[in-house]
Amino acid sequence: MKKFIAELVGTATLVLIGCGTAVLAGAEVGQAGIAAAFGLAIVAMAYGIGPISGCHINPAVSLGIYVSGRIDAAEMVRHWIAQFIGASIGAAILYLIASGRANYNLATDGLGQNGWGAGYLGEYSLAAAFTFEVVATFIFVVVILGATQKTAPAAMAGLAIGLTLWGIHLLGIQVTGVSVNPARSFGPALFTGMGQLWLFILAPAIGAVLAGLAFRAGLMERRDGDRP
Amino acid sequence: MKKFIAELVGTATLVLIGCGTAVLAGAEVGQAGIAAAFGLAIVAMAYGIGPISGCHINPAVSLGIYVSGRIDAAEMVRHWIAQFIGASIGAAILYLIASGRANYNLATDGLGQNGWGAGYLGEYSLAAAFTFEVVATFIFVVVILGATQKTAPAAMAGLAIGLTLWGIHLLGIQVTGVSVNPARSFGPALFTGMGQLWLFILAPAIGAVLAGLAFRAGLMERRDGDRP
Amino acid sequence: MKKFIAELVGTATLVLIGCGTAVLAGAEVGQAGIAAAFGLAIVAMAYGIGPISGCHINPAVSLGIYVSGRIDAAEMVRHWIAQFIGASIGAAILYLIASGRANYNLATDGLGQNGWGAGYLGEYSLAAAFTFEVVATFIFVVVILGATQKTAPAAMAGLAIGLTLWGIHLLGIQVTGVSVNPARSFGPALFTGMGQLWLFILAPAIGAVLAGLAFRAGLMERRDGDRP
Amino acid sequence: MKKFIAELVGTATLVLIGCGTAVLAGAEVGQAGIAAAFGLAIVAMAYGIGPISGCHINPAVSLGIYVSGRIDAAEMVRHWIAQFIGASIGAAILYLIASGRANYNLATDGLGQNGWGAGYLGEYSLAAAFTFEVVATFIFVVVILGATQKTAPAAMAGLAIGLTLWGIHLLGIQVTGVSVNPARSFGPALFTGMGQLWLFILAPAIGAVLAGLAFRAGLMERRDGDRP
Repeated sequence: MKKFIAELVGTATLVLIGCGTAVLAGAEVGQAGIAAAFGLAIVAMAYGIGPISGCHINPAVSLGIYVSGRIDAAEMVRHWIAQFIGASIGAAILYLIASGRANYNLATDGLGQNGWGAGYLGEYSLAAAFTFEVVATFIFVVVILGATQKTAPAAMAGLAIGLTLWGIHLLGIQVTGVSVNPARSFGPALFTGMGQLWLFILAPAIGAVLAGLAFRAGLMERRDGDRP
Repeated sequence: MKKFIAELVGTATLVLIGCGTAVLAGAEVGQAGIAAAFGLAIVAMAYGIGPISGCHINPAVSLGIYVSGRIDAAEMVRHWIAQFIGASIGAAILYLIASGRANYNLATDGLGQNGWGAGYLGEYSLAAAFTFEVVATFIFVVVILGATQKTAPAAMAGLAIGLTLWGIHLLGIQVTGVSVNPARSFGPALFTGMGQLWLFILAPAIGAVLAGLAFRAGLMERRDGDRP
Repeated sequence: MKKFIAELVGTATLVLIGCGTAVLAGAEVGQAGIAAAFGLAIVAMAYGIGPISGCHINPAVSLGIYVSGRIDAAEMVRHWIAQFIGASIGAAILYLIASGRANYNLATDGLGQNGWGAGYLGEYSLAAAFTFEVVATFIFVVVILGATQKTAPAAMAGLAIGLTLWGIHLLGIQVTGVSVNPARSFGPALFTGMGQLWLFILAPAIGAVLAGLAFRAGLMERRDGDRP
Repeated sequence: MKKFIAELVGTATLVLIGCGTAVLAGAEVGQAGIAAAFGLAIVAMAYGIGPISGCHINPAVSLGIYVSGRIDAAEMVRHWIAQFIGASIGAAILYLIASGRANYNLATDGLGQNGWGAGYLGEYSLAAAFTFEVVATFIFVVVILGATQKTAPAAMAGLAIGLTLWGIHLLGIQVTGVSVNPARSFGPALFTGMGQLWLFILAPAIGAVLAGLAFRAGLMERRDGDRP
């Protein structure tokens, strides 16, 4: 129950701060500011709710951790439910606040939704968008699994993971707005349309599974008996 | 006495660096720079005066910690007094420095005061401003209570809390200038007018109480016997 | 084998996030955003793959560490091979994604390659470019060797090193685009031309050797028996 | 001898990265980027050379630490000498690199020197400049003395101190360019003129002495027997 609340609050906060900065403040702080907001939201939640649930707040992350063998399927599914509910609540709160601006228009201003192609930021192709999301999620989950393994300094993991997401957003906002997180894509899509949502479920899932397999196979994880 | 001095110096520093960056440097560093300044001021004080007083430097934070059961009412009230005095001193020093610019005008340039509605930044409604301040303070106090609980890495708390405030400011400067801190709102309002101050006392208090109750009830706090 | 994979993935990630931010997002996030991306990529990899290989992901760094006496020549050479392959893969992935933008043109948009002189950013002289790369690499390797010595707080090293690279990029993007890393220069040069690559191998090597010698000689390293 | 080299290299690096970002990249990264560069340079050196000398790299900091009672006068003076020499070397390297830009002009582009009044950035008065430097140095030295006291988490001190300097620069670049460090002011002034240097020796010294006295008197330092 505690873990469910933690994942729900955590994912709602990520969507509110990350997508919210894009919607409420994007014109003022630019893509560099939006990138920082997503990263800092992860840092906030990693230390705020991490002691309870481990702060996945991302279904792809829970999937990658499951594939790596560190949690079981039941826990993954409970996390997923909390994450999608939380993302929806976060998007709803954001919509409520955004609607308080006289000239806010959901159709034109959006809600920080992900996308690609004609009319979306850098107007990248589907192939570029797909490639980016697979690779970026792979990198993100490698950092999560690497920074939380037994021989890593546990206290630093949340910071490192948040700063990684910051870097990934600097790179990719022009391409897809950066998902690497199906729940973060789902929340705003509830309000702005589900037409492109499939990619932001499928591609992060592939990236996360690849990272999880690399760790399960022991290719990227320190094991007892490894040379120092 | 040491704690009183620490909270006073800490709150003065927060107001000087945070509000000061808005007033002295806002045109140069933008809202992203102002957001960073507020967050970095928290990091500075968390490590500079935190070992003495715990670095609340925010009456809503002291209220939330009191509601969570970690400090008593007398300590909260002593902190409050120090925080409001400190914020006033910080605002006064800022006014002194700002007045040293030939073309500084208190009426038009302000002193980093919070607000909403016509003429204030994004011109958000009262409801949006209130909602934002409640939710943002809730998130902020959840991070504070979560990151300083027994099972969390204590050394990282100050950094995580400061980076959280940075993220919250990226999100909300357009809405209210971001308070989440009645003392931070009080200091500048002494100079620029108290007309909208009530919201920045009431809404942060509500957010902080909700977070404090969630921890007191054990909904978001790790307890002995919890599953890992 | 694990170390080889780690260095390869790490260097690919550095090139993708760092050079990629320049190519895909440079117009949006500016040189400050590009600088942050390089630094954050180091932080990501320091905690993500650092527990496996130490996260050199830079042939000059491996050289400096070898000169300091902390690794042997065989490990350095294995790292070098992984780093150059990884950087090439990172640049290839970046090219793949960049090509998904309708108006991308390799000849004019580049791939985040380093350079100097007429037509390159600030149009600095060869002497300035060479001086900058030697000095910046010296500083970078001093931080790496200093922050990972026995008496330093090991958990913080990755963060400190990443933030150092961030600062070095703020300083020097106008001069050379900042290499301090022959592999990071090699990856993009595979696509955009090798004409200026020699400087970004030679100058970082000199800076790294100087730093390595300073530590080997005990001039900058804490030794048993030193006064506190 | 090691400490002397460390303070010299550290101060040279601070001047090169901090002032250098202003000179070489100011037009690209703005005051927010310059502020980050100064802060990140401190983080770099705190972990790179901190294990040797404690990384003062600032005569006012050494003075404040001396006044607090933590070092003796002889060590302070040795540090001062290294710091002023290092700052001069850093400024010289910066001048060498800057001169490699075809259109660089020392008289108009400067070397990141501090100042105030007509023609200097925000054109603040002498009183505002003096007040800012005293207060900012007081805050900076409070963070240094507080974050390195016995009960504080030692590993975080360098990060907290660097982020503090980042915040102080966001606040005050418009006012004086931010010194809080006589050596940082001295290096560039060697090339651009000493006319305003006195303020950047005197005001930081006053701020540092005030902070040192507060700690020596036990007003801001945790002592055995203090209530938790």
